[in-house]
Amino acid sequence: MAAPTWQQGKTGIAEDMKKSKSDKSHSRKGQSHVGARYAVGLDYGTNSVRALVVNVANGEEVGTAVCNYPSGSEGILLDPRDHNLARQSPLDYVKGLQQVVVDALKQARHLAGVTPDQIVGLGVDTTGSTPIPVDDQNRPMCLRPEFKKNLNAYAWLWKDHTAYREAAAITEAAKKNRPQYLAKCGGVYSSEWYWSKVLHCLNVDPVLFDAAYAWIEMEDYIPAVLCGVEHPEAVVRGVCAAGHKAMYNPRWGGMPDAEFLSSLHPKLARVRERIAAPAAAIDHQAGRLTAGWAAKLGLKPGIPVAVGAFDAHLGAVGSGIKTGTLVKIVGTSTCDIMAAKTSVPDITGVCGIVEGSVLPGYFGIEAGQSAVGDIFRWFVKFICQGNDRLQVKLTEEARALKPGASGLMALDWNNGNRTILVDPQLTGLLVGMTLHTSRVEIYRALLEATAFGALTIINRIEEYGIPIERVVCCGGISEKNDLFMQIYADVLNRPMYISRSAQTCALGAAIAGALAAGAHPSIESAIEAMTGVKKKVYRPIPGHVAVYRELYVVYKTLHDAFGVSGAVPVTRVMKELLKIKAKVLGI
Amino acid sequence: MAAPTWQQGKTGIAEDMKKSKSDKSHSRKGQSHVGARYAVGLDYGTNSVRALVVNVANGEEVGTAVCNYPSGSEGILLDPRDHNLARQSPLDYVKGLQQVVVDALKQARHLAGVTPDQIVGLGVDTTGSTPIPVDDQNRPMCLRPEFKKNLNAYAWLWKDHTAYREAAAITEAAKKNRPQYLAKCGGVYSSEWYWSKVLHCLNVDPVLFDAAYAWIEMEDYIPAVLCGVEHPEAVVRGVCAAGHKAMYNPRWGGMPDAEFLSSLHPKLARVRERIAAPAAAIDHQAGRLTAGWAAKLGLKPGIPVAVGAFDAHLGAVGSGIKTGTLVKIVGTSTCDIMAAKTSVPDITGVCGIVEGSVLPGYFGIEAGQSAVGDIFRWFVKFICQGNDRLQVKLTEEARALKPGASGLMALDWNNGNRTILVDPQLTGLLVGMTLHTSRVEIYRALLEATAFGALTIINRIEEYGIPIERVVCCGGISEKNDLFMQIYADVLNRPMYISRSAQTCALGAAIAGALAAGAHPSIESAIEAMTGVKKKVYRPIPGHVAVYRELYVVYKTLHDAFGVSGAVPVTRVMKELLKIKAKVLGI
Repeated sequence: MAAPTWQQGKTGIAEDMKKSKSDKSHSRKGQSHVGARYAVGLDYGTNSVRALVVNVANGEEVGTAVCNYPSGSEGILLDPRDHNLARQSPLDYVKGLQQVVVDALKQARHLAGVTPDQIVGLGVDTTGSTPIPVDDQNRPMCLRPEFKKNLNAYAWLWKDHTAYREAAAITEAAKKNRPQYLAKCGGVYSSEWYWSKVLHCLNVDPVLFDAAYAWIEMEDYIPAVLCGVEHPEAVVRGVCAAGHKAMYNPRWGGMPDAEFLSSLHPKLARVRERIAAPAAAIDHQAGRLTAGWAAKLGLKPGIPVAVGAFDAHLGAVGSGIKTGTLVKIVGTSTCDIMAAKTSVPDITGVCGIVEGSVLPGYFGIEAGQSAVGDIFRWFVKFICQGNDRLQVKLTEEARALKPGASGLMALDWNNGNRTILVDPQLTGLLVGMTLHTSRVEIYRALLEATAFGALTIINRIEEYGIPIERVVCCGGISEKNDLFMQIYADVLNRPMYISRSAQTCALGAAIAGALAAGAHPSIESAIEAMTGVKKKVYRPIPGHVAVYRELYVVYKTLHDAFGVSGAVPVTRVMKELLKIKAKVLGI
Repeated sequence: MAAPTWQQGKTGIAEDMKKSKSDKSHSRKGQSHVGARYAVGLDYGTNSVRALVVNVANGEEVGTAVCNYPSGSEGILLDPRDHNLARQSPLDYVKGLQQVVVDALKQARHLAGVTPDQIVGLGVDTTGSTPIPVDDQNRPMCLRPEFKKNLNAYAWLWKDHTAYREAAAITEAAKKNRPQYLAKCGGVYSSEWYWSKVLHCLNVDPVLFDAAYAWIEMEDYIPAVLCGVEHPEAVVRGVCAAGHKAMYNPRWGGMPDAEFLSSLHPKLARVRERIAAPAAAIDHQAGRLTAGWAAKLGLKPGIPVAVGAFDAHLGAVGSGIKTGTLVKIVGTSTCDIMAAKTSVPDITGVCGIVEGSVLPGYFGIEAGQSAVGDIFRWFVKFICQGNDRLQVKLTEEARALKPGASGLMALDWNNGNRTILVDPQLTGLLVGMTLHTSRVEIYRALLEATAFGALTIINRIEEYGIPIERVVCCGGISEKNDLFMQIYADVLNRPMYISRSAQTCALGAAIAGALAAGAHPSIESAIEAMTGVKKKVYRPIPGHVAVYRELYVVYKTLHDAFGVSGAVPVTRVMKELLKIKAKVLGI
């Protein structure tokens, strides 16, 4: 690993604030900062950590800073012999944290005169499932000299896929003996999730497994560090990671039972014992900031630190989630988040339904598409061999095309299908090419395909009695690509809103911090006060809606033919090609 | 129309001869030319006409010249309001003829000392079905001042698709009342063919139709001009065009019967009367060269001119067709030609089976793929926005990929499917893309898709009891793209040969000329003496054959699902997309 050399990203807050001021929807901007209270949101993404200082009264963002993780390739530790492996250094997390908080506070002081005593709470979101093996003092195993060179001793990043065999074994076992476990996570347990990864370590590296005391999710590890929790069993765990990734559910007494885990491996039940306490929602405190960390960060000691949650979930909070609203965190992939006040039935193909995972007192629903921005980038970069400028040009030209005029249809499965098919082994498809088909037409067909994929998720959720009235998007694509937004409005036949904040995950984390500090009586009032949408709303164009309704029938026909197991002979096609590929490449 | 300004193409004969000399398989090269006899082959392609002077004893090519047609866009008269329309000026044909023969003879004299009295015969091939409306003196209607501006009075080029409604009507009527007519042409009558075009003219331009005396195929028109035939009913018609494109068959007394034609339009039977004489194979004479043409061309008056045939059919002759050999004329599309000594059953989906159409005394079988080179060019030019250099680079890189390693599969239907589905409304498909799929992988998948399409044709013909032992290719792609050839060898699991001549169509025409002149006792001996294959043979690589065998199952699954009407719901997908496209664009 290279020595940490922090590269500070652009903060962009000054520009953001300028933009915010011109956006009338954020009407409370410009008022006095004297006596105002602020919360800090810490947002750990895949490649960087960001801090955001937010006015708890109105959501005004007055300081931000971002740091890229210095280790490995863009912050990720890779193994050239195994493309499934993706690990991170917990040291990167901790060092980055100090830098971004200090810098964000400096900016908040400069721009709004914010002083440390005005910061009342702190919240954290992270990627996940990203479990970290720790010792009995809650220290990552990679800090021990004997494991320093062992990648299994580091954080197992969400996108690590080394545990695909274990995932299949867990799915098999649960199907047979604990179908209720699977019902809550869409029917398939993923290689990206907690138990798959822990079991994989147990299978391939029993020495490390035996040496580790517990496995702590990153979303729980960071708050525990800030609060000085020195024993893994004292770590307050968030229900977000536990419920969505570790089959935690109060209905069956929390974590999966010991008998089930032992059936997978005799030693696996031991892991359960160390994380057996009930998991909490984000309105709970993970603890209070230690004097040591307060000094390092320039904050008051003892301020509350909220229970952690996943980035997408707090992104939904920062986007103003409420009943009837679906929040789409649109990036390389999407996370689709909802919160329902009443009990939600098991929805086939939807990744997770967890009580309290998004909002305390609500059932959190998580769905998503495995690739969205990634598909556009793949086409522009790999096929057209272009850059961002070309993407802008293609978008410009694709805007002039009429829906349905290309005769093309794509399936948005270049990275598999997360919801509703829960099948990472599916692949992309494009049909309808003639000798005149242009790359602009293909680019637009790919945009449309992701919109049809999004509609399929919405339809599935609504089929189970949960109406979706409006869609709020956040993430770069939704802010930058108006064609994307209009196509979605037309395909989904719903108004499409964009979250006012450009840092919704960090804003959500700050809201959790505000809530943990008691700055708001309820999550609803915190969201009402601190979030909003941009003035620009994309509304369906009736003529387009009609064409896309016809095109969706075609999409769904392909979707079911290629995606629904055993439907017709072509269902085997994608798997068969992957099988031949694996054989040919000897993998 | 622009005034004719002849652009002479590269002849390339000197280089070809150098190449031929180094090719040991063409062993009789270098012998004395004194006293040798030669035939001239005239090859009318879509954009140009070529003449070739060939030694009848050994096929040595001693002179060639090519001229592009000067009118319209690359020789084609277009209508900007109707992209289906494609016409040509018969004047271009006649003027070009003079130029190329004179130039080719000049070269033959220069390179081999050939004198006019050494030229014993002349043969002609043309595109088709390319019917020309003529008056009662066999003059194209476009030569009359009143029709000079009427595109219907010109030659209706093979790729003119204005008659698609008439084609459907003819297919319908034949299905109902004359199924035997359809059985010989693959079950569907095409908009590119004779009766569709004549009927379309009758429907849209009755004035011209009434003014015209007859409709003569280009393959019959050119020999008639050279032989001074001044009445349409005296034109000797080739069985190639008549049998493959005009439902001619001695079994039902020649052309389709008057009752059937009258059911399509009362006036259509009249057309039949003017072309009612039996059609002939290429061993027959169309007549003898007039003194006038002999003077213009620098040839002896009275030398025999062979009955004309289509370019692909004489290309097969020039490639050395014989029992058990399939000749592939590989270009933008392919024509697949076979000749069988014994009676051939009706083969579902094979475009045409006509006695005497390729070789006298054999059943000619014509099949083909609607797009081959066109698909590669589409991908390179439209999607990658590259030129020939990029195609060379992609070929180079694709060579390094292992069969099956990309996980991709394509359907080669960007221009519909001619054989075996006979459905121009099918479109392209690509499946298996991931976020890592490269354009080289897609390029290779497209090469492979055309090979799988070729295998489907071969399998269909063999299913009907006609074994195919070897495949001989001609055309630029087969000479230039060794990866293409190797993939075909591996997919077809047969040795792939390349025709020795680079001008196989013109060589075939010269062979017809030699035969008409009695220079050989039989077509077999003429082919034996005058044709050959290159030394380089592509042989199947067993490891590749095994992988492609598995991949072909996948191709065939997609082929049947999307192409065989009513098989599964996805069969509707391509048509549905085209329907939506037509509606959206108002076409």
